[in-house]
Amino acid sequence: MTGVEGTTRRFGHLELHFSGGATLRDIVIGMSDGLTVPFALAAGISGAIQSTHVIVTAGLAEVAAGSIAMALGGYLSAKSEAEHYDRERRRERREIVETPETEAREVTGALVGYGLSAAEAAPVVVALRRRPEAWADFMMRFELGLERPMPGRALASALTIGGAYVVGGLIPLFPYMVVGQAARGLLISSALTAAALAVFGYVKCRFTNMPPIRSTLQTVLIGGAAAGAAFAIARAISV
Amino acid sequence: MTGVEGTTRRFGHLELHFSGGATLRDIVIGMSDGLTVPFALAAGISGAIQSTHVIVTAGLAEVAAGSIAMALGGYLSAKSEAEHYDRERRRERREIVETPETEAREVTGALVGYGLSAAEAAPVVVALRRRPEAWADFMMRFELGLERPMPGRALASALTIGGAYVVGGLIPLFPYMVVGQAARGLLISSALTAAALAVFGYVKCRFTNMPPIRSTLQTVLIGGAAAGAAFAIARAISV
Repeated sequence: MTGVEGTTRRFGHLELHFSGGATLRDIVIGMSDGLTVPFALAAGISGAIQSTHVIVTAGLAEVAAGSIAMALGGYLSAKSEAEHYDRERRRERREIVETPETEAREVTGALVGYGLSAAEAAPVVVALRRRPEAWADFMMRFELGLERPMPGRALASALTIGGAYVVGGLIPLFPYMVVGQAARGLLISSALTAAALAVFGYVKCRFTNMPPIRSTLQTVLIGGAAAGAAFAIARAISV
Repeated sequence: MTGVEGTTRRFGHLELHFSGGATLRDIVIGMSDGLTVPFALAAGISGAIQSTHVIVTAGLAEVAAGSIAMALGGYLSAKSEAEHYDRERRRERREIVETPETEAREVTGALVGYGLSAAEAAPVVVALRRRPEAWADFMMRFELGLERPMPGRALASALTIGGAYVVGGLIPLFPYMVVGQAARGLLISSALTAAALAVFGYVKCRFTNMPPIRSTLQTVLIGGAAAGAAFAIARAISV
């Protein structure tokens, strides 16, 4: 009975890890790049070109390109992950029917790898042999280390990543839209984006289990480093 | 003996999956975005601004910003993954010493979830209890679904992703550098990038197990969609 309880708790834990956790992760992925790259691009161009119109045009084009590339990339990667799982699961099911001895040896081998003797592993093999579906699930996790993906993840993942990128990307561009001068736009954009990155880095640490100060500093520094490099390159080629 | 062979083969399989596979994955990650976003950005700007100098400046600033943001992002994510693993591994080791009964019940619970009876699971629990290190490894994989990360992955991952982004990003910008006219630059850049995306999509399919034609088409279409959106937005705000 305690065993079953343990399993339920663990399934609950996995569930949490793969639904709420996945959405949060997608927001972090989209917003990290959204706050960083359009900011760095706008800052970089402002080192070479004075027109805020050009900076805003390039920035918005980047937000469009970046969000779509990331959203479609996220969609396809979630999709192909799900297909990969299904394909491997079908292969395991087939192998269990066609070459059960080989599969049974793989179960024994995996357990021997954890220090069991072949004799100690034998009851597990016998039990799995009676339950082909559970056996396939066991192989998926144990032999291949694969988790069953959530259904419908691909579309949700795409929209979340893309949306987070757009939200993050508009923040650093906003100052250039309202201030007519590139240098002043850069100043306000830098301050605003640094503040947004700091808040984001701080909030993110609750998800990544990183110490708050380190997470905040790291996030701000990545944005700063990317912007500095873009600024230096744009300035170098414009001289 | 067969059991041990099975294990060795599987460990070899995991090794391959996490060294060669990880580098390939990093190249795919960096180059997907590198071929797509700078191309789409340059195409987008060319819809609004005629100066190839501005396009190249913005494009190179994007390559600098994007490659650094992705490289640092990859570095930190690999780093925090490794730290997460170590932290969880230490927690499991501690729990095995401090609350062995609870941990033993979790092993039983996991195996009962695969259809074993508590009696059938008992020898596994007994064997793991004799080997605390193997027991912790078992919990990492089985309870938490975590793989031990390769040492040194973080730096290698950062350099691979960033390098692939730069290589991918320079391809679509090259035509604008040699052709003085934005519209002609866009034409050549589109053809060159479509060809590069097609080759990349084709090569990528050998890694993702996707059918070649689908992988090729998808990769080209993502680049096209991102560029189309960037072009439309840049044109809309410039009118």
